[in-house]
Amino acid sequence: MKNNQFAIVPTDSEAAIAELTKTHFITADMDTLTTVPAVYRALLAKSFPEVHSEAGLKHKFANLMATSQQTLAEWLDTAHIVNNQVFYNVGLQLLGFLPGQDFDLADPLLAMRDIHLPMVGESAFDRESLYYAWYLLLNTRGVQGQTLIELLTTRGFFAPFYQADSAQKPLFFNGKAQAVFDTDKLIREVVYVEAPLDTDDDGQRDLLKVEILRPAETNHGLKVPVLYTASPYNQGIDDQAGKAQMHNVDVPLTAKTPDDNTYADVEFKATTPKLPAARSVDETTTEAEESFGRERSYTLNDYFLARGFAVVYAAGIGSVDSDGLAPTGDEDETTSTIAIIEWLTGKRHAFTTRDGDVAIKAWWTNGSVAMTGRSYLGTLATAAATTGVDGLKTIISEAAISSWYDYYRDNGLVVAPDTFQGEDTDVLAAEVFSRSLKAGDAHHIQGKFNQKLAELTADQDRETGSYNRFWDERNYLKNVDKIKADIVMVHGLNDWNVKPRNVANLWDKLQDVPVAKKLILHQGQHIYINNLQSLDFTDMMNLWLSHELYDLDNHAEALLPNVLVQDNTAAETWTAHDNWWEDADKSLDFKVQYKELVPADHPVDQRAAHFTDKLPDKLFAHYQQHLNDWQNDLLSEDKTNPLYNHRLLFKSWQAPADQLLVGRPQVSGTVAVNQNFGMLSFMLIDFGLAQRLTVSPQLIASKALDLGYHWREDDLKDFKLAPATPFKMITKGHLNLQNRHEPWHAEAIQPNQFNDFSVELQPIFHRLLAGHQLGLVIYATDMKMTVRGNQDLQYSLNLNDIKLRIPLKTLKAK
Amino acid sequence: MKNNQFAIVPTDSEAAIAELTKTHFITADMDTLTTVPAVYRALLAKSFPEVHSEAGLKHKFANLMATSQQTLAEWLDTAHIVNNQVFYNVGLQLLGFLPGQDFDLADPLLAMRDIHLPMVGESAFDRESLYYAWYLLLNTRGVQGQTLIELLTTRGFFAPFYQADSAQKPLFFNGKAQAVFDTDKLIREVVYVEAPLDTDDDGQRDLLKVEILRPAETNHGLKVPVLYTASPYNQGIDDQAGKAQMHNVDVPLTAKTPDDNTYADVEFKATTPKLPAARSVDETTTEAEESFGRERSYTLNDYFLARGFAVVYAAGIGSVDSDGLAPTGDEDETTSTIAIIEWLTGKRHAFTTRDGDVAIKAWWTNGSVAMTGRSYLGTLATAAATTGVDGLKTIISEAAISSWYDYYRDNGLVVAPDTFQGEDTDVLAAEVFSRSLKAGDAHHIQGKFNQKLAELTADQDRETGSYNRFWDERNYLKNVDKIKADIVMVHGLNDWNVKPRNVANLWDKLQDVPVAKKLILHQGQHIYINNLQSLDFTDMMNLWLSHELYDLDNHAEALLPNVLVQDNTAAETWTAHDNWWEDADKSLDFKVQYKELVPADHPVDQRAAHFTDKLPDKLFAHYQQHLNDWQNDLLSEDKTNPLYNHRLLFKSWQAPADQLLVGRPQVSGTVAVNQNFGMLSFMLIDFGLAQRLTVSPQLIASKALDLGYHWREDDLKDFKLAPATPFKMITKGHLNLQNRHEPWHAEAIQPNQFNDFSVELQPIFHRLLAGHQLGLVIYATDMKMTVRGNQDLQYSLNLNDIKLRIPLKTLKAK
Repeated sequence: MKNNQFAIVPTDSEAAIAELTKTHFITADMDTLTTVPAVYRALLAKSFPEVHSEAGLKHKFANLMATSQQTLAEWLDTAHIVNNQVFYNVGLQLLGFLPGQDFDLADPLLAMRDIHLPMVGESAFDRESLYYAWYLLLNTRGVQGQTLIELLTTRGFFAPFYQADSAQKPLFFNGKAQAVFDTDKLIREVVYVEAPLDTDDDGQRDLLKVEILRPAETNHGLKVPVLYTASPYNQGIDDQAGKAQMHNVDVPLTAKTPDDNTYADVEFKATTPKLPAARSVDETTTEAEESFGRERSYTLNDYFLARGFAVVYAAGIGSVDSDGLAPTGDEDETTSTIAIIEWLTGKRHAFTTRDGDVAIKAWWTNGSVAMTGRSYLGTLATAAATTGVDGLKTIISEAAISSWYDYYRDNGLVVAPDTFQGEDTDVLAAEVFSRSLKAGDAHHIQGKFNQKLAELTADQDRETGSYNRFWDERNYLKNVDKIKADIVMVHGLNDWNVKPRNVANLWDKLQDVPVAKKLILHQGQHIYINNLQSLDFTDMMNLWLSHELYDLDNHAEALLPNVLVQDNTAAETWTAHDNWWEDADKSLDFKVQYKELVPADHPVDQRAAHFTDKLPDKLFAHYQQHLNDWQNDLLSEDKTNPLYNHRLLFKSWQAPADQLLVGRPQVSGTVAVNQNFGMLSFMLIDFGLAQRLTVSPQLIASKALDLGYHWREDDLKDFKLAPATPFKMITKGHLNLQNRHEPWHAEAIQPNQFNDFSVELQPIFHRLLAGHQLGLVIYATDMKMTVRGNQDLQYSLNLNDIKLRIPLKTLKAK
Repeated sequence: MKNNQFAIVPTDSEAAIAELTKTHFITADMDTLTTVPAVYRALLAKSFPEVHSEAGLKHKFANLMATSQQTLAEWLDTAHIVNNQVFYNVGLQLLGFLPGQDFDLADPLLAMRDIHLPMVGESAFDRESLYYAWYLLLNTRGVQGQTLIELLTTRGFFAPFYQADSAQKPLFFNGKAQAVFDTDKLIREVVYVEAPLDTDDDGQRDLLKVEILRPAETNHGLKVPVLYTASPYNQGIDDQAGKAQMHNVDVPLTAKTPDDNTYADVEFKATTPKLPAARSVDETTTEAEESFGRERSYTLNDYFLARGFAVVYAAGIGSVDSDGLAPTGDEDETTSTIAIIEWLTGKRHAFTTRDGDVAIKAWWTNGSVAMTGRSYLGTLATAAATTGVDGLKTIISEAAISSWYDYYRDNGLVVAPDTFQGEDTDVLAAEVFSRSLKAGDAHHIQGKFNQKLAELTADQDRETGSYNRFWDERNYLKNVDKIKADIVMVHGLNDWNVKPRNVANLWDKLQDVPVAKKLILHQGQHIYINNLQSLDFTDMMNLWLSHELYDLDNHAEALLPNVLVQDNTAAETWTAHDNWWEDADKSLDFKVQYKELVPADHPVDQRAAHFTDKLPDKLFAHYQQHLNDWQNDLLSEDKTNPLYNHRLLFKSWQAPADQLLVGRPQVSGTVAVNQNFGMLSFMLIDFGLAQRLTVSPQLIASKALDLGYHWREDDLKDFKLAPATPFKMITKGHLNLQNRHEPWHAEAIQPNQFNDFSVELQPIFHRLLAGHQLGLVIYATDMKMTVRGNQDLQYSLNLNDIKLRIPLKTLKAK
């Protein structure tokens, strides 16, 4: 195991001792202890909260080795000094490392260094340096990816703090909130927030169901901040309605009527709709009328519920027990999302029931809100942030969409999220319109929603795939300059569902916005990363949110790297960077010739290469059912592979040294097609037999992460090196040849005439190892993402025009 | 979805009303209601425990449809009668079924029948029949596999009962204990039980760590029964030690020295070892000194923790914080296992710490114990039962070993559990000897354990694979006649880890033992079945344990089928039978001729068939790494398949009608081999293109099964029909040709001389569909299970001698 820990707050000895005192590691009775080993023993005694007797404790000490010859129990009986050998031998065992397997009792310091664990150099501790070393050890991550203080938490260390006065809470340790809140006593409430919307046009403002979990201490005066997750999935999903709405993608690409569109022609301008009056408030209460059993929880939120944060879930317009219609990303959805924050900050009304008779305030919060969640959830957090709504201090947006066009379209083409061929905004709306799951409600509203669905289907315009007003409304990037919330973005470099462009564009636009922003790029697909063994993500978020929401001066902004990237060539390796591609200082520039990528200054022949898109019917039918076979064949260099003549593949030199490829690779050239329409797709490949990371994090231990004490759990996982593979797809891109310049502007092309094109592929952060080769694949139909008409389209590209440019960053020592 | 519900207790109207009253569905205030719809409304009101106001309730009613035109709220406003159409329209929705998708509001009764839900026939209910229908509905399983009463439980229905007097607990409803115990208030304790053993030979009796969870009500007088899980895995596993102990299976089979052994020569006879005196008890307490954070829990136990049962875990000798050495299945292990029960029933001492100074009694239990768990856990439950220990009222043994020889050996051969090639008793001992994980403890004990390990390695005797005294000690079947506990056995018909013979032999031997016994055979591998959507297993176990441990007269023994079998040809189909193969009334008898299985009365030619076991090195190496390729090739009928000449395959007629194959298929014949040793393996195959059940249950909904209220959760799963496959292996068997008559008796064989053999394959319960063909494969090396020497062994079989007999059962209408 290699530890990657970014959330340790450098703390001086005096402050460390104060914190140890506050957390009862140092207690008044220890003043009477006269030797350092006696003090050490007293600290160790507190590491076994499950034991209440001296005999029991002694047995626990007998389970640990202090040296290669003595158990801790034996050693304590005779010890005169505490040196760092003994301290880290015991420390490593407390952290779950096994002598003989994970480290050698004869040299624990070597293991501390190898595993990247922080340590104190003293060879013989005095009382103060012992305290300091103990403090640091408490903040060190163990074999399961939890710090010692967290491990002690899961074993009940903080349970005695449950009874402490609310005034002493929250309790921060090393800049992070600790689990001193009894999760058995959480208060669960439902309220109905009135949004400034009437999306179902019933003459009444839409009420939105909100599920609240808050610590019991809020009933005794404590004001807590809120983690708010807006999740359209949270009240259920109508799978069948979604399936019924799915689009057939085995349809031909068609010619678009050329137009003269500029952006101004497709720009969405908000109008102010007529709105029914707000409900009058005649009666107000502090007590909710409704509770709930089990919310659909989010692990990170659960973790914070034990640490002095309230959590709020809302599924928004169109969901069970709320009003309205599901609109997939429009302005109403954003308004619905921030209405909850406006209530939390005292600017909107909520009611105890849907009758709207009795109002209820969020009297238990300090008014500081963070939004959390992945995918659609993170998307709504992003949407909310772009309004600049007051009270939203930060968002942690994971795998979020920044423009819905970049989710369902690309450069004038319908391009599906991976594994969801045929999905579109209407499909998603049908799926999350969970009001349809309540037959009584659906009986009255389904007709209206079906109209809405028909509008979405028409306006999303799968016919052309062009950027229009509909998509412009759903482009949050337009409003990035309004953002006032600090942002943490998390995204998978292999996320072909919400493609990396979504986070890259947001990140890039944020460069000019005066908020704190942090970016974490991992090597996964569309996943959460809070349960990885090799990264202290949860601690980082604790540091962040303690700062953002409790105003704790813990240097979170300085401590967390601006851009943290998981290495794609080694397991358990995360590297801090200043930026993504913005500080790239050079580029790789290629031209092509027959099957080769060659340096751009290389002379190349004048010739064209051709491929035909149409496949034999049987082969096409096979690929429809076996998308991975299609991708493997596409990338295979074997001449007998059935796609060999259906794409162009160019391979580079073997890299003379490791290369750090960053940002947006650009492909340009000239192309002709035998019709007045066409498309091109591109893939960039890393060729080279190598062990690569598993596609998904692998289970290490089931339910190993207790998020508090006797509280909810998560599985421990991490990426591992998988058996060697010959290549890996790094990135891809797509282009409708009629949208060579703008996605909103359809141009005419003439059959068999060459036109220039230029396309940016999805952004990357990829280490190409020395000896590996880059590959560029140019093809047309993308079985996984585009429409698949299997048409007789033949493409020719002038080889001497094709250029590939990839920004490069100077590699730091690994 | 098809419902399979076996745990509904037929209850008359009067008793049902009494139970509804006891559970507060019927309350005194309802006496004043004058109409049936008003009573119905009052019952419905109790189905929304999360709502505390009339307005909130009304909204919930508005979410439901009563008829195809009216919501429940609308209908209630005007209803004069309650008919079964409205009742089951609403009922189906309360159970999670969706109108329009799962049923038609115009005909709910059709859906009730189709889904196999119980119903009351009344077309217009009076008060009493309404109560009765409501009672039945509460006991009906919903779309997620939970009954309505369970669904209400997870939403807080029973939370108000937490405060009830302990004297009113447990609370039974329809013969099953309900979740009226607050799992937030569970008491967690550790004690150390003194076993009548000194397996580590340190002059002190072995102390065994026990983790206890019990309801808080036990502190106020309630005596509860215990679910006890003996799990050697429960305090951790030393993976690396297990790996280091793994045996190389790529070794040759060798000739055994012929012997004259009879069973008497290998019979194990217990001796009484010298035992140190028990610790003296000078001081006794009622309070434990030690607690714990998170036990490794077992879902079924968690479920019962909310329902008035204590749960006790012990990992036994050789585990963390216990004494002793891990012995894999010997008598000491059994003694260690029942020592916990003896403490629970007042016959042994336990101490609060390992010092053994202060004794503590299990003063909180009623002395009734059940053992639970799967695999090794179920094995120890079986072992305990065969001692006839007092207090052990029942065991629920899942996928349990009944004789360790049947786990690691077969008919004189080393035969590994599937996916664990190279494992043996010593490997398992090394793995579960978790004391090695505590370096301080290991420092003193590891030497002794290594000696023990060497003994295991020697005595298990991989050289011969023969049955010897070592294995006889580990054969629980010898003591089945001592069993006094009632038994539920659960086993997978596709469990090639703990093979079906283990449960079949136990079941068969139990036929003569005067205890209640129930058998559930599912189509899975080595799995738990408590989270299946299509079977009320958890309810069945609740019925069983409420009867066994609380002495409730709920007819559990009569209600649960003797043998319950999951159908292998259809999803969600479970069928009750009187017995396994014991009531088989006929058999299928085959002989063979060239590549064919033919009816036994068919004349066949005199000829021999041959195959050679040795494979080309490269192919052999490939199969070593790709075991599934090996099995596929072995069964493939394609002549180009590389194993075509390395096995014999005989196929039958197409079955003229469905056949129910049960019990132990028997293959006999004559065989010659070119050496003085050899082995044969056999597989029985179901050939026929068909959709078959998935190998494992598929995830339906994550964390969908709340085991109480705000308590632990399990995922909802079930087997689904997978895409069609051409064949499926039904069963297999193995034979060392030197053990043609007894596993303890090695006979001489002469090269190239024919000898007769007869072998019973692993027992089956398999429906062969009309039109399918049976296949018999005869081969030698089993890459997945036997040693793999890739030796030049050539086998000849006289075709006219080969016979296959399979017991058949008359099919009941499906």
